[in-house]
Amino acid sequence: MTSATVTPVESAPSRSLAERFFAVRAATEGLCAPLEVEDYVVSSMADVSPTKWHLAHTSWFFETFLLAPHVDEYVALNPRYAFLFNSYYVQAGERHCRAQRGLVTRPTVREVYDYRRYVDDAVLALCARIGDDVEHPAWAILELGLHHEQQHQELLLTDIKHVFWTNPMRPTFRAAGATVPTAAIQGWRHVAEGVRTIGHAGGDFAFDNEGPEHKVYLNAFALAHRLVTNAEYAAFIADGGYRQAALWMSKGWGEAREGAWTAPLYWEHHDGAWHEFTLAGTAPISPDAPVTHVSYYEADAFARWAGYRLPTEAEWETVARDFPVEGRFVERGAHHPSADAKAGMQQLYGDAWQWTQSAYVAYPGYRASPGAIGEYNGKWMCDQWVLRGASCATPRSHARLTYRNFFPSDARWQFTGIRLAADA
Amino acid sequence: MTSATVTPVESAPSRSLAERFFAVRAATEGLCAPLEVEDYVVSSMADVSPTKWHLAHTSWFFETFLLAPHVDEYVALNPRYAFLFNSYYVQAGERHCRAQRGLVTRPTVREVYDYRRYVDDAVLALCARIGDDVEHPAWAILELGLHHEQQHQELLLTDIKHVFWTNPMRPTFRAAGATVPTAAIQGWRHVAEGVRTIGHAGGDFAFDNEGPEHKVYLNAFALAHRLVTNAEYAAFIADGGYRQAALWMSKGWGEAREGAWTAPLYWEHHDGAWHEFTLAGTAPISPDAPVTHVSYYEADAFARWAGYRLPTEAEWETVARDFPVEGRFVERGAHHPSADAKAGMQQLYGDAWQWTQSAYVAYPGYRASPGAIGEYNGKWMCDQWVLRGASCATPRSHARLTYRNFFPSDARWQFTGIRLAADA
Amino acid sequence: MTSATVTPVESAPSRSLAERFFAVRAATEGLCAPLEVEDYVVSSMADVSPTKWHLAHTSWFFETFLLAPHVDEYVALNPRYAFLFNSYYVQAGERHCRAQRGLVTRPTVREVYDYRRYVDDAVLALCARIGDDVEHPAWAILELGLHHEQQHQELLLTDIKHVFWTNPMRPTFRAAGATVPTAAIQGWRHVAEGVRTIGHAGGDFAFDNEGPEHKVYLNAFALAHRLVTNAEYAAFIADGGYRQAALWMSKGWGEAREGAWTAPLYWEHHDGAWHEFTLAGTAPISPDAPVTHVSYYEADAFARWAGYRLPTEAEWETVARDFPVEGRFVERGAHHPSADAKAGMQQLYGDAWQWTQSAYVAYPGYRASPGAIGEYNGKWMCDQWVLRGASCATPRSHARLTYRNFFPSDARWQFTGIRLAADA
Amino acid sequence: MTSATVTPVESAPSRSLAERFFAVRAATEGLCAPLEVEDYVVSSMADVSPTKWHLAHTSWFFETFLLAPHVDEYVALNPRYAFLFNSYYVQAGERHCRAQRGLVTRPTVREVYDYRRYVDDAVLALCARIGDDVEHPAWAILELGLHHEQQHQELLLTDIKHVFWTNPMRPTFRAAGATVPTAAIQGWRHVAEGVRTIGHAGGDFAFDNEGPEHKVYLNAFALAHRLVTNAEYAAFIADGGYRQAALWMSKGWGEAREGAWTAPLYWEHHDGAWHEFTLAGTAPISPDAPVTHVSYYEADAFARWAGYRLPTEAEWETVARDFPVEGRFVERGAHHPSADAKAGMQQLYGDAWQWTQSAYVAYPGYRASPGAIGEYNGKWMCDQWVLRGASCATPRSHARLTYRNFFPSDARWQFTGIRLAADA
Repeated sequence: MTSATVTPVESAPSRSLAERFFAVRAATEGLCAPLEVEDYVVSSMADVSPTKWHLAHTSWFFETFLLAPHVDEYVALNPRYAFLFNSYYVQAGERHCRAQRGLVTRPTVREVYDYRRYVDDAVLALCARIGDDVEHPAWAILELGLHHEQQHQELLLTDIKHVFWTNPMRPTFRAAGATVPTAAIQGWRHVAEGVRTIGHAGGDFAFDNEGPEHKVYLNAFALAHRLVTNAEYAAFIADGGYRQAALWMSKGWGEAREGAWTAPLYWEHHDGAWHEFTLAGTAPISPDAPVTHVSYYEADAFARWAGYRLPTEAEWETVARDFPVEGRFVERGAHHPSADAKAGMQQLYGDAWQWTQSAYVAYPGYRASPGAIGEYNGKWMCDQWVLRGASCATPRSHARLTYRNFFPSDARWQFTGIRLAADA
Repeated sequence: MTSATVTPVESAPSRSLAERFFAVRAATEGLCAPLEVEDYVVSSMADVSPTKWHLAHTSWFFETFLLAPHVDEYVALNPRYAFLFNSYYVQAGERHCRAQRGLVTRPTVREVYDYRRYVDDAVLALCARIGDDVEHPAWAILELGLHHEQQHQELLLTDIKHVFWTNPMRPTFRAAGATVPTAAIQGWRHVAEGVRTIGHAGGDFAFDNEGPEHKVYLNAFALAHRLVTNAEYAAFIADGGYRQAALWMSKGWGEAREGAWTAPLYWEHHDGAWHEFTLAGTAPISPDAPVTHVSYYEADAFARWAGYRLPTEAEWETVARDFPVEGRFVERGAHHPSADAKAGMQQLYGDAWQWTQSAYVAYPGYRASPGAIGEYNGKWMCDQWVLRGASCATPRSHARLTYRNFFPSDARWQFTGIRLAADA
Repeated sequence: MTSATVTPVESAPSRSLAERFFAVRAATEGLCAPLEVEDYVVSSMADVSPTKWHLAHTSWFFETFLLAPHVDEYVALNPRYAFLFNSYYVQAGERHCRAQRGLVTRPTVREVYDYRRYVDDAVLALCARIGDDVEHPAWAILELGLHHEQQHQELLLTDIKHVFWTNPMRPTFRAAGATVPTAAIQGWRHVAEGVRTIGHAGGDFAFDNEGPEHKVYLNAFALAHRLVTNAEYAAFIADGGYRQAALWMSKGWGEAREGAWTAPLYWEHHDGAWHEFTLAGTAPISPDAPVTHVSYYEADAFARWAGYRLPTEAEWETVARDFPVEGRFVERGAHHPSADAKAGMQQLYGDAWQWTQSAYVAYPGYRASPGAIGEYNGKWMCDQWVLRGASCATPRSHARLTYRNFFPSDARWQFTGIRLAADA
Repeated sequence: MTSATVTPVESAPSRSLAERFFAVRAATEGLCAPLEVEDYVVSSMADVSPTKWHLAHTSWFFETFLLAPHVDEYVALNPRYAFLFNSYYVQAGERHCRAQRGLVTRPTVREVYDYRRYVDDAVLALCARIGDDVEHPAWAILELGLHHEQQHQELLLTDIKHVFWTNPMRPTFRAAGATVPTAAIQGWRHVAEGVRTIGHAGGDFAFDNEGPEHKVYLNAFALAHRLVTNAEYAAFIADGGYRQAALWMSKGWGEAREGAWTAPLYWEHHDGAWHEFTLAGTAPISPDAPVTHVSYYEADAFARWAGYRLPTEAEWETVARDFPVEGRFVERGAHHPSADAKAGMQQLYGDAWQWTQSAYVAYPGYRASPGAIGEYNGKWMCDQWVLRGASCATPRSHARLTYRNFFPSDARWQFTGIRLAADA
């Protein structure tokens, strides 16, 4: 299956804050190892940011929200970077137009790495000052900054994949894995009707949108043991799935027509078979690997065609509560769904984000953080869907039971897949 | 306040089906009395359909879903009308491009009225055959057709309002009312935490999206007694509500900037005061009337500014369950919110549709009807919000406790208003 | 062939100014006889104005440029009409957005006709005052206003043709003619190299852009006796003319691809043959009739395919100088090109405007009129081509040897055709 | 003034073809000396190509039109380059979408230089075979390729200027010059009415669009001795030139409004004065330097405001015929218009391209070359204006009396300026 090597970053409490900071920052740069300087610069579509920008923006985040308020003597390396590398924090000042991110050749890649070093030094000095004082007001911001950078590690991979795919030369990012994925026969986990509790509680890190913990009432339902495979999705295509309006949301049908969609993003049909562009180049689809790079529209249409539906996020979390994240990520190229099969549920984390039919809105009692940090999640609660789990591009230590990822209905460049659900 | 006279159409069971059909069809045409032939033809923006089209499309609906399947000898008046007047039912065949609805001068208005007569005659003949056999398979379709036509009565009014507003001559649709609205001091109805039941059940008519009835878990909350007034909304404007990004959803802030929004649609500032274009022409805003023609973005931003939030649809319905619809509609120009005040809740129906923070998705166990009729509600469950209640343009007999109206975040041409909610 | 009946309006000096005014105004309204009220209202694309607008705008022209400056006591019928019916005269004040012309339902058609009567009365009173004083400063403006209205007579026909074609009901404007056009064998008129004189001189009316008269140097050339026929154009299509980039201007190739052009506007292929939508409905193309509704791109590509080129306007005028306009218009349905054949040149006027390869720029010594009237021609001298002759929709008394019509490269909704030229 | 150092490349017949080839290729690469790898990659707007693309495309040109047909054993370095680096030659095969040129990170800059070396070697080997046989069929293509590459040298500079300007960091390309330009008092050269000859004749190289030589008839006219200066243009701005519709072409007024133009491209007003972004960074405008980076619309409006007009290309060439190109280019930073003043005409070449009011159409008798090379000039003869002279970015040996540069009305990123003309 399409999967990315992300250096595992343990968040074990035994590791010092500085060690964790260093590890996350190093992991980001490790992802860039296969890139040429030219690859860092461009943005192949509106959703995609240049690698260079990811490297700089994550540094700007520490500079703006951690160093500026908590290190009196801190002086920004270049005052114009605040303008260039602010993504969308209106309360943090004027910012560069997103559409032009891919047009900016300076600072150079070398200068951006220098910027990272400069920020790293200041953060590590601050870490030394904080020690293990978890009550220090900077601690929570630093923790947020690490998770923020991990989000950009995932984006960096999905974005460079799109950049490479846009290039008629079709460069490859890395070598292909050796193992062929296999899929178990589909099974279902049944859950009885009743009041359930979802959402984040307790002292561990979570984004503000994951809480508060609250009760929901669920009808009886069943959740599929594993994700929909490429072979299953190919059957949907072969059955005319992209030609039957009755299977689709009206908006989805319109976008599929306009965009001439006939398959997931990155699929192409040649030599009598479906092929898929991956970070390791183009290859025939792997029948048992989970389908990825489908929009909400496609996930929803597939579910309708299959006679099922997408789960709600409460259903997903209710089931996943019984399956800890730890140890569920598999090594790339060593995919063993059968290992999970004993416990029933497979592929909850580490294969593909799973579209839910839950719109991304606030949980009851949700309060956005004050100030610019409050823009992190709250202002996006509109016309997006929640996705649950974690993908092959998600850093391992970043996955969480209560994680609420969100994308609009037409997003296809992420490693997004399908888990089915059914009424009992 | 801005309100529309819609001839009340009683759905009392004592009335025969034919009488009800006749009354609804007559009510539609009654709304057109003030129009010149030219007014029937144009579409002033993508959301607006020509009056002529509303008159014809509602007839096409009966022709296609009632007469064609249930009257063997029925012959369509003009076979090309099926192409021109199909709105979006993909399964009902090819259809005219929505963007071109306002470019079609023939059939003329006279010919469209002839078309209505032709369909009326056939439907009334069918009614005679059905009698009071509510089990007849045509009965439910006819009932649906009546509610469908009532929906278009409301659209006809909101659409012609937009057409008149687009015209620099600013024609008026009718005379202004004589009574000045008054608003009670705001109060709050508190509801305790627990499992509640919402959604439609029982034999009365409801759209498929209103069911099934199901349980939800609600945290304790409070719902405002009345709608937000023009004066309250003007205070939001005066306080810089349209200039503070922190109050807005990100998409909303973008659209407000791009559209240069500074007030609700139809508001304009001149002679030192806010004025509002209404069906009776332009006049200073009525301070105590409920604000209308606000988008979800504006409703949500206002609520955040005011320190509250929008209700969920379950919260709204839980409260409204204690207040029957009947008798809550007021005569135009005779607005007496104080009458409601004794019971606590006011303006649940008949003033403005009320934005909720519930995305429009399927209820647990929802099943769309089979065939083209199933496109009525199901395929729109994407990137829209539920609105509850009923507006001044809603036909009285069309309002319902479980009614789920839905519009996208930026819709402003409907009579949409704001009811606040709060966590307990 | 596609041709329009335009009541001939003689400009003989013997007729009084009032008589000529009356005749032109009546001719405009005569063209509207076949229309329903609804037909007057819409604009089917950016280039098309509603019939109602043509009727009102031509009246506004007299009101603004003739009555306001020359009739002291003149009071505008409705001051808002100045905003609604100003086309593009920036110096004449603010004006309505062109894109919204088709959205304005009031004033009604009846009110627009009342406006015409109101302006007519004032103009006729002024005529009485002027008598036959050709030196009166109002005389030249009135003359300009008549030619302006004649231009709109032509536009009214081409615009309503497009409106009817846009309508899936495909209404007809009038009955088809009885006579079948015939075309002579193509011949060529040769002209020797040398200095020639072109452009308007003398006291007769002409637009400012037709002068000054000036000398040009022409290489030896030949001009085709008659226009390219539908049959000849169909051969170009059959030979892959729309599929060979090498025949086309780069911009034209782009627009043809984007617009999916495969034939002239209004042509459609069904039942094994090319058909053409005309004011009399859809019919098989008439092989010997001149091809019309081709863009500059198509005319230029056809000429290249045929091994020829388009003429310059100086070449066209040099030849046409030997063939007076009078008597060259033929009755609709009675097309006798053979009559002209004796003199060599045919179809100079009255069949189709003829694209030239002359860009529309100022003649040497050109001066635009002062004030708003100067916007009539001068500000359009950019990215347009000159067309010569006159079409079947041109009022007979409006055609002139030195007339410089102009349209951009992609315009196809006019009766535009092709006359070939060649180097000697 | 804004000027670029372009290594002079003598085309003296004494130099061997190989020497000339080597010199032109080296000059292109010399221009890139100040660039970082990142700078080569992006396209800051539709008109701008990445530096990397210019380097590759010019090599592709030699490969496709010279090596492929004339070197039997030639094997393309990478077959996919033919797709990536074909600009617009439809007859040379499928090609990459222009809009995506700036999204392609591979081949890398290093690989593109390797490609140049590969092509260089093959061309130099061919040169050795050709020797000084000017009749060899490859000779003319090689000559064309050299002029083609010189055109791209100019584009490379104007494009990188735009890339740098788009970057909020505002990088500089080179150091500023030391000399301050001075401008002579404006004077006029008068030319009498009569038949003149223009266009290219003889054996020297010229593009096909510069011929054939032919006669034109010119009215008496006067041509300004020097270009319009920044100070003169600033007076136009100060007098409201950008706010008076009456000065502008209608399309120009629309584009200026939509683009919010208030000055030439690259001008910005701060600290109480007009500044200009140049390849040496931002500096106050040099009052006596010629205004550059104006569109046709602005040049035409300025001329109208000044009471003059733009010249025709025939007028320009008639005057320039008396002033040889040689020796008229000045060293950058050593601008001495007074030197020219003795002869009357100044700045014909080497300061700015000069907009004419001649539309870019074929000369009488023009024939495009056969095959794909024929697409070089001919298919662009539509909606563009001829510019004459040469700019500060034009390679010295590339300027010619009969050179017909062409750009559309709104192009501003070239070094385009204004020379006035008047009727006698």
